[in-house]
Amino acid sequence: MPRMQLLKWLEKHPCSAIVILADSAVWELYDTLFDGLERYASITLMTIQGGEQAKSLETVSALWKKMLENRIDKEALLLNVGGGSVSDAGGLVAATYKRGIRYINVPTTLLAMVDAATGGKTAINFNGIKNSIGVIALPQEVFISTLFLQSLPGEELLNGFAELLKYALIADSALWRTVRNLTEINGDTVLPKWIEGAVAFKKRVVAQDLHDRGVRRCLNFGHTAGHALEAFFYGRAPLTHGHAVALGMAVEAWLSHFCGSLPRQEAIDIQQFIARFYPFVKLQDSDVQEITALCLQDKKSSFGAINCTLLAQTGHYTVNNSVSSEDMQMALHSVFS
Amino acid sequence: MPRMQLLKWLEKHPCSAIVILADSAVWELYDTLFDGLERYASITLMTIQGGEQAKSLETVSALWKKMLENRIDKEALLLNVGGGSVSDAGGLVAATYKRGIRYINVPTTLLAMVDAATGGKTAINFNGIKNSIGVIALPQEVFISTLFLQSLPGEELLNGFAELLKYALIADSALWRTVRNLTEINGDTVLPKWIEGAVAFKKRVVAQDLHDRGVRRCLNFGHTAGHALEAFFYGRAPLTHGHAVALGMAVEAWLSHFCGSLPRQEAIDIQQFIARFYPFVKLQDSDVQEITALCLQDKKSSFGAINCTLLAQTGHYTVNNSVSSEDMQMALHSVFS
Repeated sequence: MPRMQLLKWLEKHPCSAIVILADSAVWELYDTLFDGLERYASITLMTIQGGEQAKSLETVSALWKKMLENRIDKEALLLNVGGGSVSDAGGLVAATYKRGIRYINVPTTLLAMVDAATGGKTAINFNGIKNSIGVIALPQEVFISTLFLQSLPGEELLNGFAELLKYALIADSALWRTVRNLTEINGDTVLPKWIEGAVAFKKRVVAQDLHDRGVRRCLNFGHTAGHALEAFFYGRAPLTHGHAVALGMAVEAWLSHFCGSLPRQEAIDIQQFIARFYPFVKLQDSDVQEITALCLQDKKSSFGAINCTLLAQTGHYTVNNSVSSEDMQMALHSVFS
Repeated sequence: MPRMQLLKWLEKHPCSAIVILADSAVWELYDTLFDGLERYASITLMTIQGGEQAKSLETVSALWKKMLENRIDKEALLLNVGGGSVSDAGGLVAATYKRGIRYINVPTTLLAMVDAATGGKTAINFNGIKNSIGVIALPQEVFISTLFLQSLPGEELLNGFAELLKYALIADSALWRTVRNLTEINGDTVLPKWIEGAVAFKKRVVAQDLHDRGVRRCLNFGHTAGHALEAFFYGRAPLTHGHAVALGMAVEAWLSHFCGSLPRQEAIDIQQFIARFYPFVKLQDSDVQEITALCLQDKKSSFGAINCTLLAQTGHYTVNNSVSSEDMQMALHSVFS
């Protein structure tokens, strides 16, 4: 339970103030879970509407302003309660307020639990470009409770499940062999031990490569194509991040076959499993070209080559593969034609 | 020469693009010093008016926007050419753009050379509060050339000289014995090797204590009283930062005598040297009380005691000294009566 974990933490770590940035919908349901914090320090609360639009300079500026007006000093703690959008924006505020204060994440979506809340990647979207502004600054703690999943809509669960699937595909082939038999994804079929496995793996990887130059890039499997697909569909029929990453993993499974050693049958199996839960669409030639151009704009791409993490086999990744535009187009065609 | 140093650096460190943030007045005089960079990567230039008002979210946002529009990627280099306001704002942009790109400072004022450009403290002013938003992110290099000092107004030279004097007083008694004989401060009497000494010392200190919790506080000598004096005079007859710090060092030299082991004659010598270049004013009893109250509000002060870095003797500092309001008042009276 996050309450007991938080109280225990505060007992050991004196804070001059506690600032809470919370998803307003989550806070309405779960505010009593945070009773008792006020015994440790004064509370400054800001609630925001969750979701991608929360990751804005406006959110960050509003929280900076509120903290300065409340004379929050460097010994304060920022507590992010919500999905990845809350911890992404709140983490950036913590990292930049008076050159950095401590922060703790309490993720309330499956996606945030297995991905955004751990690893210290903070960001906002700026000038229409996702995660274009941010820093890497680790939280003091990430307190996870599957209690929050009870109230999570099914689509949100699918959104997070994509990252669990990614973890299975890059690092846990036993889990992949288990989940590929799933016919339903809900609060009962997604097991807490899978979440724990994914978080423990991510923590190990981040500890080895905080700044994402080497091994941490294993976490990018599905994300180069995924981000491009997310951006492409944004103005048309927006995809959830998880949906985009799921489709991106199908694309990059094919890339792993074309440019690497993944057997053709594995790519087919991965695509078919993904298609069971995440709807595919047909794309035109011009769409494929546009998405490829977006891949070239990806943060990791440089000097005109697309940088992808691929699968050597299921449960095993290779990072920093340079992929040509032609290969990316071929993989996109394999999935979306 | 920054040009040769930069070209050499670029030879060894491939960059996908070079972004230059420059003080417009400096750029007008010295742009040819940067000829040849375009052979290594495309150049994106943004010039801004230097000075405190440059350290704003508007500057930072404008540069983020320009960089995104020019598709600058993570392998780019940001080059800050100007005084401390340029490296403070530009450093923050580099630290936050796509979660951090490399940056190099080319300081063009004496103050930036001996202080702001080294040590990685980046910041903007926000909601009326100085340096309230920022991060600590070290530049790759700081390339210093005293060539820029030729065009620096005398007042700006004095502004930076205060930090050079601070370095001599806390860490280089031989330099103190040299500079105390100065009768004029100008581009010819301020020697490059003094600047090099101050920079090398700051680099050593920062390497030991990047986050300013221990030994880095030695750099605060003169700054507790200095910041209070700067704030006190702000609404009356604003002092430059260097002027305020110089007066603050006179005050804290007396404190070093009253509360520590600095001989009385040394305090007198320091005050007389400072008075040679930085005008003193007379203060009333009520002014002294007001300035003491401001010292108590300093971020390093707590539990009603003023936190100061003092001199054990010239060339030797002690950090985290607790000073009473009475001692501070006595020191202020010694200087300003």
